[in-house]
Amino acid sequence: MITYNQQNGAVSLHSPTSMPNACGFLWNENMMIQMNCRGYAVAQFMQPEPAKYAHGPALEAKTFMQPEHAYFSHHPGRFFYIKDNQTGEIFSVPYAPVKQAHSKFEFIVDKHKISWKVEHLNLTCHLSLSLTAEDTAELWQLSVTNHADSIRDLSIYSYFPVGYMSWMNQSARFDDTLTSILCESVTPYQKVEQYPVQKDFKDTTVFISDRNPTSYETRQVIFEGEGGLNNPDAIKNEHLASKPAHYQTPAAIMQFTQSLSPEESSQFNFIFAPVKDAKEAKQLKQKYLSSEQKLNKAKQKYQQYIATSDNKLEISSPNNALDNFINHWLPRQVFYHGDVNRLSTDPQTRNYLQDAMGMMYISPDKTKSAFIKALSQQHKNGEMPDGVLLNADSEFKYINQIPHTDHCVWLVICIEAYLNETGDYDFLNQDIPFSDNQYSVSVLEHINLALDYLWSQRDSRGLNYINQGDWCDPMNMVGYKGIGVSSWLSLASAYSMKLWADVSVAVGESAQADKWRQQANTLNQDVNQHCWDGEWFARGITDAGNCFGVSANTEGRIYLNPQSFSMLSGAITEQQWPLMQAQIKQQLQTPFGMMMLAPSYTHMHEEVGRLTQKFPGTGENGSVYNHAGAFYIFALFERGETDTAFELLNTMINPSSDSDTLARGQLPVFIPNYYRGAYFQYPEDAGKSSQLFNTGTVAWIYRIVIEQLIGLKGIKDGLKIQPQLPSAWDKLEVTRLFRQSTIKLNVKREEHISEQQVLVDGIPLHINQQGEFILAIKPKQNYCIEVALPLAPSVN
Amino acid sequence: MITYNQQNGAVSLHSPTSMPNACGFLWNENMMIQMNCRGYAVAQFMQPEPAKYAHGPALEAKTFMQPEHAYFSHHPGRFFYIKDNQTGEIFSVPYAPVKQAHSKFEFIVDKHKISWKVEHLNLTCHLSLSLTAEDTAELWQLSVTNHADSIRDLSIYSYFPVGYMSWMNQSARFDDTLTSILCESVTPYQKVEQYPVQKDFKDTTVFISDRNPTSYETRQVIFEGEGGLNNPDAIKNEHLASKPAHYQTPAAIMQFTQSLSPEESSQFNFIFAPVKDAKEAKQLKQKYLSSEQKLNKAKQKYQQYIATSDNKLEISSPNNALDNFINHWLPRQVFYHGDVNRLSTDPQTRNYLQDAMGMMYISPDKTKSAFIKALSQQHKNGEMPDGVLLNADSEFKYINQIPHTDHCVWLVICIEAYLNETGDYDFLNQDIPFSDNQYSVSVLEHINLALDYLWSQRDSRGLNYINQGDWCDPMNMVGYKGIGVSSWLSLASAYSMKLWADVSVAVGESAQADKWRQQANTLNQDVNQHCWDGEWFARGITDAGNCFGVSANTEGRIYLNPQSFSMLSGAITEQQWPLMQAQIKQQLQTPFGMMMLAPSYTHMHEEVGRLTQKFPGTGENGSVYNHAGAFYIFALFERGETDTAFELLNTMINPSSDSDTLARGQLPVFIPNYYRGAYFQYPEDAGKSSQLFNTGTVAWIYRIVIEQLIGLKGIKDGLKIQPQLPSAWDKLEVTRLFRQSTIKLNVKREEHISEQQVLVDGIPLHINQQGEFILAIKPKQNYCIEVALPLAPSVN
Repeated sequence: MITYNQQNGAVSLHSPTSMPNACGFLWNENMMIQMNCRGYAVAQFMQPEPAKYAHGPALEAKTFMQPEHAYFSHHPGRFFYIKDNQTGEIFSVPYAPVKQAHSKFEFIVDKHKISWKVEHLNLTCHLSLSLTAEDTAELWQLSVTNHADSIRDLSIYSYFPVGYMSWMNQSARFDDTLTSILCESVTPYQKVEQYPVQKDFKDTTVFISDRNPTSYETRQVIFEGEGGLNNPDAIKNEHLASKPAHYQTPAAIMQFTQSLSPEESSQFNFIFAPVKDAKEAKQLKQKYLSSEQKLNKAKQKYQQYIATSDNKLEISSPNNALDNFINHWLPRQVFYHGDVNRLSTDPQTRNYLQDAMGMMYISPDKTKSAFIKALSQQHKNGEMPDGVLLNADSEFKYINQIPHTDHCVWLVICIEAYLNETGDYDFLNQDIPFSDNQYSVSVLEHINLALDYLWSQRDSRGLNYINQGDWCDPMNMVGYKGIGVSSWLSLASAYSMKLWADVSVAVGESAQADKWRQQANTLNQDVNQHCWDGEWFARGITDAGNCFGVSANTEGRIYLNPQSFSMLSGAITEQQWPLMQAQIKQQLQTPFGMMMLAPSYTHMHEEVGRLTQKFPGTGENGSVYNHAGAFYIFALFERGETDTAFELLNTMINPSSDSDTLARGQLPVFIPNYYRGAYFQYPEDAGKSSQLFNTGTVAWIYRIVIEQLIGLKGIKDGLKIQPQLPSAWDKLEVTRLFRQSTIKLNVKREEHISEQQVLVDGIPLHINQQGEFILAIKPKQNYCIEVALPLAPSVN
Repeated sequence: MITYNQQNGAVSLHSPTSMPNACGFLWNENMMIQMNCRGYAVAQFMQPEPAKYAHGPALEAKTFMQPEHAYFSHHPGRFFYIKDNQTGEIFSVPYAPVKQAHSKFEFIVDKHKISWKVEHLNLTCHLSLSLTAEDTAELWQLSVTNHADSIRDLSIYSYFPVGYMSWMNQSARFDDTLTSILCESVTPYQKVEQYPVQKDFKDTTVFISDRNPTSYETRQVIFEGEGGLNNPDAIKNEHLASKPAHYQTPAAIMQFTQSLSPEESSQFNFIFAPVKDAKEAKQLKQKYLSSEQKLNKAKQKYQQYIATSDNKLEISSPNNALDNFINHWLPRQVFYHGDVNRLSTDPQTRNYLQDAMGMMYISPDKTKSAFIKALSQQHKNGEMPDGVLLNADSEFKYINQIPHTDHCVWLVICIEAYLNETGDYDFLNQDIPFSDNQYSVSVLEHINLALDYLWSQRDSRGLNYINQGDWCDPMNMVGYKGIGVSSWLSLASAYSMKLWADVSVAVGESAQADKWRQQANTLNQDVNQHCWDGEWFARGITDAGNCFGVSANTEGRIYLNPQSFSMLSGAITEQQWPLMQAQIKQQLQTPFGMMMLAPSYTHMHEEVGRLTQKFPGTGENGSVYNHAGAFYIFALFERGETDTAFELLNTMINPSSDSDTLARGQLPVFIPNYYRGAYFQYPEDAGKSSQLFNTGTVAWIYRIVIEQLIGLKGIKDGLKIQPQLPSAWDKLEVTRLFRQSTIKLNVKREEHISEQQVLVDGIPLHINQQGEFILAIKPKQNYCIEVALPLAPSVN
């Protein structure tokens, strides 16, 4: 059902009905397209706020990207109808709108290209989408080959609906000098101030063909007629009406009549893009469709852009599907996050920082720039804003209008990771200003202020206030009166102080280090005193003084995050750990991963707030929320619980069978923000992918793979070597680029040894005083590391 | 194609393909539903802001009601599938989603009910929708009759899609104690402040049946399967899956298996409604579906509510279709406007006042209350706000956030009309406070202040500033710098001052009257000096000092409104009039009525602004904008240009043939805000109805019919009798309720008379000193007025 191309990582789906929501996505720095296997599409570009160039048939709400996106027959998409003019038979490519059963179907998601191979009526149709590295433009190619013994007389119709562009002004026309359909519109405006902003919008959507069509149609409703999209009236005729649309919903429909001899092929190239005007459309055509060389070069260039994330890490493990994901898709998704900020102009601070953290394995300079930008928006009292404004005109939207209390934590955690990966401790001395004050202080000082701010935001119990929310959890009514506290945030504060204590030591600030350690210990003790429920940690204490996320609750009884962070911060004791681990497993673990909380809330709890209004098992309300899951895995690896950690890691990224993949409804080409949870409440729906590929998860999973599973972790003075292989693996081969050097790692289990042994370029590396294998790394060298591990305890 | 029921005014359409957008609408004080002949629906209710209980399949934008609404296969609607279980044949009622050609189809728009009669496969289906007078609830009834000679085994399926209710929480389930499908959701909220407002929302949409279904389905996507809505997978099976929806797009689908003997009928009753919870659903079921008597009584009650507007005026003219519209549909639409404020909580002040004005012929108390509410929101400097806030929580939305300069004008014009219609001059002495000051002054003083305010808002030329707009015209860049002026507004100021001078005389304020007349004359002179373009009046002068709406312009060369108001204000001289009239006719008149301006703007004119971004021929950009047309008709009647005026009146409300009706695409059951214009630019699209029934037009058209065509105009001391019959009419019979008296009017043309003659109850009424026939009216009397008119000049 699903196949992999081992060479380039491409993943193929062989039926459009088995997994109707399967999709791939492509992006460049200014746009993103999520392409569904059936031809439906969700595409956005920045101008400078996120905008669309193909719309649904109704006025759509402007909203953040939604999980579990639903497709319907008039959803935007990119389709072709093929008609045999002799028999009148029709089918469509990729699958919708006709939805006939093809003789053969393949949906191929490549890193730089999404394509289909469809065989039907003795014809083979290859359809592919590429983007460009420079422009907001889709490059479509269709080739049709006749496998019959006789000459075929075909009509090939594009059907690219453009939808309800604007109630103010919309129209469509064919331009024969451009062989294009131009769908023109004006973005509605009412206030005079809007005009200067909007007047340069790319309000025209153009469909450019590299050849002249036989006929065309621009009016959605006329095209469809009474037959509907599965059998449109217009293509029952010999030719389309070739008429413009005047304030009717536009669509880009071209007919190409084509005669094909046996085994003859014909190839069509198209561009679909938002442009300012016909002049821009002309430039696009010139740039991409004026010669085959230009087009191929542009596609190569895009492939190179996407390949930025290639070859930083390659692993060869006993698990090929896992390798495929880690070598090809995981870094690609990490790169996407680090490169385009989820196509937003005000990324949430915590997302922005973690996305930047992931990027340190691919383009550490980008990571550093992002940190500088974030730090320059810190308040002089140490507080971090809810979002990072990327442009002068950006403003806080959606959830960024709700104050959250956790952003300082991520600053510390992510910069600590960067220092270790890059060794760039000079960064700590760089001076950066504040948002509300032009004087500059060093990065080190910025972070000290952030930690001081966290320390200042505690109640009389010593716990961090939660206010209207911490992290992604929309618990907006726990502490909105200014009383309620968060155990998770208190633990995360403690964890970040511990991390920073080590950095402080490394830069010779031992007094600071002592302060951070002492404060961290105090936080850990206070959480233990007020939030230990007997077998796990509560999630917090409400304005009304009630502990929640505790055994007395029937919904939201246990939350994963406080447990994970108690492991990271050191709040959990050896006595508590087995109790907590058992409860996590029993209450939160599902075959699809760890639920973020359980049982999911089924109705409003006014002491918790918005979270409890979310549908059970979706989003933060008890889904298998991968971002939370990643921290548990991270913490498990840190504790040396390798097999459990690996099992959860593998579950998250690598469905163990086709039927698991089908249950997810998603190809293994990205990690979604969640799989449906509420496993014990709604078992039938559990495991379903949200299909939303924007998630803080991937930076952490990449970090886990590199630093824990593979065990090639950067530290100030080089590389710490400590692979944590699951018992079931007896070997692992890795190539990693690290500080401009190439590290080859070869891990094997060997009999008769009881401790890890390391050879570097054939020479034994000795364990240091801390019991660690540290290798000093010089830039632009090759290192060959051989690690011998003891045999695993026998796996039953 | 279209037929009328002379008795109750019902209008029938006999094919769903000839006029795909034909619709009727029903409302009560809290909801509105526009029902399309094919089964698609647009429904809103107030809680307290406009809300929906059935949605499209994508997240929809919150927006004002859009003209030229487009339907698509997954658009919200109310449908039934009928399946012959023996043959497997299916069809749908009303028409979509299957869209088969029925043997017979009739769509009947009644004032209180919308229904269909469909014959297919030897079955007759009667489907009808009624509302209730008290609740937000749709009452649906379906009856199916078997006309075959044999017993039929049928499956009848409801298909009421509920759509994308909420990304936060949505689900659907069958409740067997209620025999209902409850589609539950939570309106998304992010800010704590939203919760108290939203927690009592009617977030559940319920579909209640009066009998137990055989099976059900709640999941849109499962119902459809690969077959699509025209041939859903689920109804190919014997039974539906009877499963709940968990965060899938919900739909209310019930299957009823039904065996019918020859000529046997079966009847089904349903409620579709938004409710707070199952308890409210139960109350609805109890109230409407617990007995046939209760249901019929509720329907009667709703019929009585709609009949509020009946019998205030009945005419019998030589034109039956015109009579049908004037007797039944025009007062109904006037009542709708006056009763529900277009389902908004912040109606634009000018709309609110004019809608209230229309209501004075139906419920003058409501008119008065509206005026009081509007006056209490006047600023103490005389300025009227852009919108009238109906509730404490209302706020200005959409266009009401843009300052407009004309609102004072409408206050004067509408209250003057009210004084004449009701004779309620005591109202002028009533004390009312201001919005920004608690002291109260009399209505008379309020209006004097409004006129003083208008007078104060003029430039050095003596013309009224336009700022970001006057009236409905979004010319937001003409005068946003505070320099540009409006000739229309200057003329409207003059007109309102002239009207108020007469009122001032009537209340003994002759000094004030002189002041208003003098100011009006000055305004008229100043407009003539600065804005007379040679053959018509300019629309205004821009910030840059350019006259626009003049012969030098290639787009927006002539605007109708300044011409009409120059006729009303007296600015136009006898020398100018024939020049202007010829240009109006030549440049603005179309077979569908008067365009508001011509030629329509086709691109941005930065000195005009938003208006020029609208699609040519739609809305204010050169459509046959009926509100503007109404003023021209009103002014023509005032000038005694009866035949021209009547021709335009008749064109607006009464298509002269079925083919005209089809070109409009609208049944003659309401006046839309516009028909497509840009007649000389886009002739193929011209005449198409916007389908939007919210329009200030109807108050004026009703006023024109009553006061000018019929000529029974209220004045302070009674009734002025002056019918203005078109030449083609030789008689007219009218019954009018006026100040609680019944007026019967019988107009005839007679030979050998040269002046109008009037008999009241058989006794001649004599002309007064002003040359008018004035009849003093006592309440609760019957008057029989016979008017003899001279023969018309022979009509060629």
